[in-house]
Amino acid sequence: MDVRTEIIAVGSELLLGQIVNSNAQFLSQQFAQLGMGVYYHTVVGDNSTRLEHAIKIAQNRSNVIVFTGGLGPTKDDLTKETIATMLGKKLVFDYEALASIEQYFTKTKRKMSENNKKQALVLEDAVILKNDHGMAPGMGIKVDDIIYILLPGPPSEMRPMFQNYCRGYLQQTLGLQEKIISRVLRYFGIGESQLETDIEDLINEQTNPTIAPLAAEGEVTLRLTAKHIDEAVANEMLDELESKINQRVGEFFYGYNDTTLISELSKQLSNKKRTVAAAESLTGGMFSEYITAIDGASNIFKGSLITYTNEMKVNILRVSKQTLSEHGAVSEQCAIEMAEQVRDIVGSDIGISFTGAAGPKPHEGQPVGTVYIGVAVKGKETSTYKLHLSGTRQGIRIKTVKYGCHYIVKHLKDL
Amino acid sequence: MDVRTEIIAVGSELLLGQIVNSNAQFLSQQFAQLGMGVYYHTVVGDNSTRLEHAIKIAQNRSNVIVFTGGLGPTKDDLTKETIATMLGKKLVFDYEALASIEQYFTKTKRKMSENNKKQALVLEDAVILKNDHGMAPGMGIKVDDIIYILLPGPPSEMRPMFQNYCRGYLQQTLGLQEKIISRVLRYFGIGESQLETDIEDLINEQTNPTIAPLAAEGEVTLRLTAKHIDEAVANEMLDELESKINQRVGEFFYGYNDTTLISELSKQLSNKKRTVAAAESLTGGMFSEYITAIDGASNIFKGSLITYTNEMKVNILRVSKQTLSEHGAVSEQCAIEMAEQVRDIVGSDIGISFTGAAGPKPHEGQPVGTVYIGVAVKGKETSTYKLHLSGTRQGIRIKTVKYGCHYIVKHLKDL
Repeated sequence: MDVRTEIIAVGSELLLGQIVNSNAQFLSQQFAQLGMGVYYHTVVGDNSTRLEHAIKIAQNRSNVIVFTGGLGPTKDDLTKETIATMLGKKLVFDYEALASIEQYFTKTKRKMSENNKKQALVLEDAVILKNDHGMAPGMGIKVDDIIYILLPGPPSEMRPMFQNYCRGYLQQTLGLQEKIISRVLRYFGIGESQLETDIEDLINEQTNPTIAPLAAEGEVTLRLTAKHIDEAVANEMLDELESKINQRVGEFFYGYNDTTLISELSKQLSNKKRTVAAAESLTGGMFSEYITAIDGASNIFKGSLITYTNEMKVNILRVSKQTLSEHGAVSEQCAIEMAEQVRDIVGSDIGISFTGAAGPKPHEGQPVGTVYIGVAVKGKETSTYKLHLSGTRQGIRIKTVKYGCHYIVKHLKDL
Repeated sequence: MDVRTEIIAVGSELLLGQIVNSNAQFLSQQFAQLGMGVYYHTVVGDNSTRLEHAIKIAQNRSNVIVFTGGLGPTKDDLTKETIATMLGKKLVFDYEALASIEQYFTKTKRKMSENNKKQALVLEDAVILKNDHGMAPGMGIKVDDIIYILLPGPPSEMRPMFQNYCRGYLQQTLGLQEKIISRVLRYFGIGESQLETDIEDLINEQTNPTIAPLAAEGEVTLRLTAKHIDEAVANEMLDELESKINQRVGEFFYGYNDTTLISELSKQLSNKKRTVAAAESLTGGMFSEYITAIDGASNIFKGSLITYTNEMKVNILRVSKQTLSEHGAVSEQCAIEMAEQVRDIVGSDIGISFTGAAGPKPHEGQPVGTVYIGVAVKGKETSTYKLHLSGTRQGIRIKTVKYGCHYIVKHLKDL
């Protein structure tokens, strides 16, 4: 079957420019990986007449119509009501969804208003797509050779629903034969243009598998995608290409797919049964927040000290006043003392420190982007790294944390 | 004239999800300010048949059709060629554009290829919109009571072209006089459906001004939009509606437009010349990171203590062992001690503590989402708040921090 996909986002907030249609981008990427052709994106407001109009057009040109948004509890959420009318389907309660909605209100001790129940209404005969992160379930239904998919608007609900329930429904219903296997290779410490120059010939001769480079916040990723009816063969194709690539740039490779420098760091720390503590100045707690975002952090992380001012560096981290007066807070010496002190005060195996000028103004005469990172490993000599980073205040803070993870992982290799 | 605007973005890269349609968002915001109703966004690939199809649909439902993309030099840039054919217009050289293109190549000492000339081709009879940041000029033309606007795809070219040339063309051609004034009201601590129930009658009778609710991460916003020839009157209309709304839900109102709970907290702290320090357990540094994300944080924030484990709560925060054994770390008593200790250790005016179960597993027998927040203000009795939050681990942490900001702001009112 020749798949002609159309994504219809429903929501006046999109037409007012309050939010960008990131759902269409996410779904388009997913459909591309599934080998489904996407020919149109449409955005229509919370208006049943215009939505009906848009659906009629889609029915004439597309055979997979994917809706996002308009499944909420309020009056202007009317996606499923409009589709129900057009398809001549009743709306019936999905009791599993209804139960979990009621459960939510009991648990949060909040009053459940009548219109919350509305979220548990689904199209009769539809396959229910569970919403693990919100109240409104999604739906999939095939009528007259057209597949209709209804997904919630909030990305935090829509994305996992697609990954966990909708993709499988589509593969099955469309009987997608050719397997599309993707593998993302992640690199840190090398620029995008350098990496692309190093593998230019491979990029130029790409057909299947394909290579798609992407750069973001100091990292570069390569998405390798292979198509083959036999999944095993597709994977072999990826293995072969990957080794070709990493023969050249393997030293900068740090992980696959959704691996992040933080998740890689956590993994390495648990494998080596080591703990880390941070003394954070310019990063203001970002390193610690990232590491505790991962479940089970307490095995590798006990605590950190955020010393934003010099007063705190002296009072809480016991950095010597002399160091601050002679070298300043943005200095190798200060980074060393911060890292060693936090390691000893918290009682962890590794202490890391972040001090620098995040901007927008220079700090202690140091230009914006000047950053010192100290890594103090018990029983080893403390290392420091000086960085010259560019970007916004937040961008510099994020890159700083990534370099920190990168350096600790390096040290863990010899532990 | 009743303006029905449609934005058609042309580019296969959008349908592949390689980029997000930020142009549609930018233009929608601009059109909203001009009081032009935007009823549809369409995205179509670099395919003349489907583009023609999309244009025919737009001609039937819209009277201002705005194109972005497809003005470039390559074969698959075919926006103006397709429109020219459909409108029966010739493509003619814009010699000013042609000259600046040639100039560019002489200046950069690069060889000009024939298809670069193609970028200087424009629709006969069209008003030229200068491109100060690229080669392809934009166009505006009115045919059979429909206004066609052609803009380049790269935002760096499209945005200044719109601001400097296109807006004026539209105001003149449409004879726009009515001013559109928008105001976003931000609420925290009340659910979307509850808020909408509370103001249901106002939403139902809305015409001018209009009310557009939007919910995100535990917050709800209402965008009020008023139209009037006299800007002052439009503002009065908004004032009146705002006071009506806040007579009912004002206790949950915290700010306007781009205000965030964190920015509001920072503002209040600087106004009152107070400093805050945090003892963070489940939030792992998130509160501190957010507050230091704002430039000039050192006036209101000196440092924080991240005590993720009980060992740290005892060793660094001096929480009594008895408290932990009798009440556990996720308890009112622990939240009180953490808040008071961090305030005194750091030497700030206010200490805030976050302790709870972020999930995915219960913590010390406390169900996921159980959170205690302590607020210790110098010279006042320490307050604690117990929350039952839902969502992912990260969602719970974010909501926890937002509640923290919300509570401190409340306390600052009496300081």
